[in-house]
Amino acid sequence: MKIELKYTQPSEIERQSMETISRILLEQGIHLAPENESVIRRVIHTTADFDYAQTLSFSPDAVEQGRAAIRRGACIVTDTRMAWSGINKKRLAEYGGEGFCFISDQDVVRLASDNSTTRAVASMEKASRIDRELIFAIGNAPTALVRLYELIAEGKLSPALVIGVPVGFVNVVESKELFVTGGPGQIQAPHIIARGRKGGSNVAAAIVNALLYGM
Amino acid sequence: MKIELKYTQPSEIERQSMETISRILLEQGIHLAPENESVIRRVIHTTADFDYAQTLSFSPDAVEQGRAAIRRGACIVTDTRMAWSGINKKRLAEYGGEGFCFISDQDVVRLASDNSTTRAVASMEKASRIDRELIFAIGNAPTALVRLYELIAEGKLSPALVIGVPVGFVNVVESKELFVTGGPGQIQAPHIIARGRKGGSNVAAAIVNALLYGM
Repeated sequence: MKIELKYTQPSEIERQSMETISRILLEQGIHLAPENESVIRRVIHTTADFDYAQTLSFSPDAVEQGRAAIRRGACIVTDTRMAWSGINKKRLAEYGGEGFCFISDQDVVRLASDNSTTRAVASMEKASRIDRELIFAIGNAPTALVRLYELIAEGKLSPALVIGVPVGFVNVVESKELFVTGGPGQIQAPHIIARGRKGGSNVAAAIVNALLYGM
Repeated sequence: MKIELKYTQPSEIERQSMETISRILLEQGIHLAPENESVIRRVIHTTADFDYAQTLSFSPDAVEQGRAAIRRGACIVTDTRMAWSGINKKRLAEYGGEGFCFISDQDVVRLASDNSTTRAVASMEKASRIDRELIFAIGNAPTALVRLYELIAEGKLSPALVIGVPVGFVNVVESKELFVTGGPGQIQAPHIIARGRKGGSNVAAAIVNALLYGM
């Protein structure tokens, strides 16, 4: 038995998908800011969820700042292996960057246990000691995003970009709003945030890949 | 600077999240079938997307059949490294099962090129030759799901369960409906399908983990 599919070439499928996304955005009367369009479209492509056209929030020039950092060889730090897996690390390596996820490292597990904190928090501590320009892509742990915020507010870290898209029902909205509003420390960190409850490791990876594919 | 969070223990966050999900389902007047509830709730927990309460479609006893297969040592085959990464393989190993993803294997890359097909299809061909009981968790490639369908219709494969949750705009809905309706081959394969465009590697992994956590 052979099931015939109309489109089978990956490049054709991608073109066709992006065309459908454009049509639906048009039907819904949604206009995307040109500088953020490539990121928003790729997130919709990854999730088939048009809510992201409304919820993705960008600090001024966030996309261009992220791309400029990658061109300079910035590394990407994720909070989950899933997000790490989804990132096109081959493309990243063309600019000299690497992908890091420390969540399962033995020293991180020990640090988390010693400090009664989460492994996600401990993995951010470890990342903050890397002597490279960094982009953080947080798709799961609001505690990681909060710790990032604290490190930035304390002047211990200044990431090129924070992609903050944890998903969930507890601490998630609050952790993301810290970056959108600047929070009590009134920080101004370049960020791409998915406001509300939605997000995920797949969304984090899609945003990084959108930066990479639009270079 | 220290940002105080109300809940910080993972177990407490999970409890709190599930409570919120229950409340929202109640508010929306949605009642879940008891046998499918654990899967639907975990997918909502993973995505914060209540659409899945409506779109997840289960063949009779799919959840129980999946768990029984895992108890017998069934292995999980995914179409992406992301889905593979998200599966709790330690928990799976307690029952003797393993997680497989062949998408980047050299023989799969070669097979795809020789047969002018996608790597996803070639990885399903490879999986069909494993002499183990198998559960497939497909979160990305509709071509993989279609090839699975063909192999089942041809009598070359009989998976314990097909988790079919690709996401996207081309071939996606059609590939999933093959399993829901039985398609031209009128097959009856145990399945959990996310109808419509939505799904993803994160959803595929969440469904596998929901099976594992409810054993």
